[in-house]
Amino acid sequence: MSLIPSHIKSLRPYVPGRTIEEIKKEFNLDRVYKLASNENPLGPSPNAVKAMTECMSDVHRYQDVGAIELRTLIAQKYDLHIDNVAVGSGSEGIISYILRCFLQDDDELLSSAGTFIGFQVLAKSSGKKYVEVPMKKGYKFDLDAIYNAINPKTKIIYLCNPNNPTGTIFTKDEFEKFVDKVPEDVIVILDEAYFEFAQDKPEYPDSLHYRHDNVITLRTFSKVYGIAAVRIGYGFGQKDFIESIMKVKMPFEPSLPAQVGAIASLEDEAFLQKSLQINQEGHKFITDEFDKLGLNWIPSYANFVMIDFGDENKVADINESMLRDGIIIRPLKPFGLGHCLRITVGTEEENIAMLKSLKKFI
Amino acid sequence: MSLIPSHIKSLRPYVPGRTIEEIKKEFNLDRVYKLASNENPLGPSPNAVKAMTECMSDVHRYQDVGAIELRTLIAQKYDLHIDNVAVGSGSEGIISYILRCFLQDDDELLSSAGTFIGFQVLAKSSGKKYVEVPMKKGYKFDLDAIYNAINPKTKIIYLCNPNNPTGTIFTKDEFEKFVDKVPEDVIVILDEAYFEFAQDKPEYPDSLHYRHDNVITLRTFSKVYGIAAVRIGYGFGQKDFIESIMKVKMPFEPSLPAQVGAIASLEDEAFLQKSLQINQEGHKFITDEFDKLGLNWIPSYANFVMIDFGDENKVADINESMLRDGIIIRPLKPFGLGHCLRITVGTEEENIAMLKSLKKFI
Repeated sequence: MSLIPSHIKSLRPYVPGRTIEEIKKEFNLDRVYKLASNENPLGPSPNAVKAMTECMSDVHRYQDVGAIELRTLIAQKYDLHIDNVAVGSGSEGIISYILRCFLQDDDELLSSAGTFIGFQVLAKSSGKKYVEVPMKKGYKFDLDAIYNAINPKTKIIYLCNPNNPTGTIFTKDEFEKFVDKVPEDVIVILDEAYFEFAQDKPEYPDSLHYRHDNVITLRTFSKVYGIAAVRIGYGFGQKDFIESIMKVKMPFEPSLPAQVGAIASLEDEAFLQKSLQINQEGHKFITDEFDKLGLNWIPSYANFVMIDFGDENKVADINESMLRDGIIIRPLKPFGLGHCLRITVGTEEENIAMLKSLKKFI
Repeated sequence: MSLIPSHIKSLRPYVPGRTIEEIKKEFNLDRVYKLASNENPLGPSPNAVKAMTECMSDVHRYQDVGAIELRTLIAQKYDLHIDNVAVGSGSEGIISYILRCFLQDDDELLSSAGTFIGFQVLAKSSGKKYVEVPMKKGYKFDLDAIYNAINPKTKIIYLCNPNNPTGTIFTKDEFEKFVDKVPEDVIVILDEAYFEFAQDKPEYPDSLHYRHDNVITLRTFSKVYGIAAVRIGYGFGQKDFIESIMKVKMPFEPSLPAQVGAIASLEDEAFLQKSLQINQEGHKFITDEFDKLGLNWIPSYANFVMIDFGDENKVADINESMLRDGIIIRPLKPFGLGHCLRITVGTEEENIAMLKSLKKFI
């Protein structure tokens, strides 16, 4: 007799990008470049490192569980009230609170194929029915098809914009048309982990401009802010939602280093701008080179680019060959896109090394 | 229309002990002693501070999600296999994974009154039925009554030993009698957050000596190891359980600082011994003084002592008076023990200050 429910037994865990240490060991390499996990290649903000280092002697004391200072700062930055701001251990942490909070009985979850696996794992481990709608041409979310897939049991829709791993977005027009007709009793989670990279594009819908009562926006300090491994994300929503989310959250999340690191990161505007600039330059550089190589890359609004190689075996071979060169990139089989690779935009040095290794194979 | 389920609406959030900064501000004080949250008064291990500081420049990269190095070290220390070791953001994090993993349909949860509120909040936010059995005389768990409360729907029993906030334990005899008759399809979570303080007492049942297939043991780095605010706990169980728990855990928990801090803490045996000694000395000192004051304190196996004042108003008055003196202790109304106070054993200086303030009132 097993006590483990069948939906947990059949659950495939989230398998993240491989670490630099793993690849160094496996291929006996001194230098490894990681362009696999959409991390900030510049590292964390020096401001954040300083603040986190300074808090270390205080970590024997539990921190402020309301994260008041951080939430106040975020509220100010986005012209909201603190009651509209949730925080958690990464935006994934907040997704798990949302699921714990709102899912009941035979509620169902709905999303697109080809999106962030973290949501998929959480949805499937909830034991509820999880429906995925195929993408449309160009690896874009098919919002019409997602709308048509809504049924009376649908409780939560997850949309990632820009989407990971495709880098594509749905536009203002598409979003407005969609969100205006979604029933009010369906919660839309809008994961904007890559918001900062897309915010200046006029066609990108910043969900905070809309304030729909059934939309919860999620953002993170793991990407452009460069503190992925301390785990902190934040979210916006109507007061009742945020109050409920904060009630079910693990009381001592986010950690003290995460809270002070996030505050110091928000205050380092120069680092943010530099990070965005490095990304913009690197993005242009690598996609120009991809064009020269005749690669089928997908226009991206984030700090990574997906390339469609049309063939899963080819992707596996390229990946293996690049790993031997000490370049970690992300084959997308776990995302259901086995014929595609995702490459994070790195520093100039990293981009050049990646292209050199990629060219050997093409 | 509200989308928030009624069990979430009625949920009362976990309200932790107040912070030093809050009390300094509220009472306009320069010096505040916190003896409210069972923290290590010596701070974190200097080893841990060093290791966590050193990892700060790497936090832009996601850490090892398997926490292999830490889990290997824990397995070695306790003579187990890594497959029997789970880690999470605090033992509470692991409790939330266990609930997410095993609870289905009309499963029920069972525990004692007068125990750790964190479990209660998680149990209630699960939306499942949560049954609490009254304590017996001496603020001890009534394991016979808990056994008798098991019904065919009972899926998870939560036991905290030593118990927070009472400091009491159930003995080897009591545990063996209980666990041998609990049905195999009922999971027993044994929260041993205060294990290190009790382990040398011959009557204390170290759950790792037993290896029951339906028992999951939880421990933490938040108490004697002194790194509460970086959030890391660990658990032991049969391989299938641990595999499932690790599948549903947030993939990037525990954080990088938490993993390296835990490793460095485990390696600092001298700090552990010193922390245990300070606690032992302080424990004797304050309880001797409590005796002189004629207080009804409850024999404790942990780093705190509960005092029964027999009257909720008296407790509120003492608490208010001590806060004005800059001493934070824990009134236990949120634990359902409004007539009791919990006081953490501090350093000599803290204990003397606490006693001075307490004496003023008695």
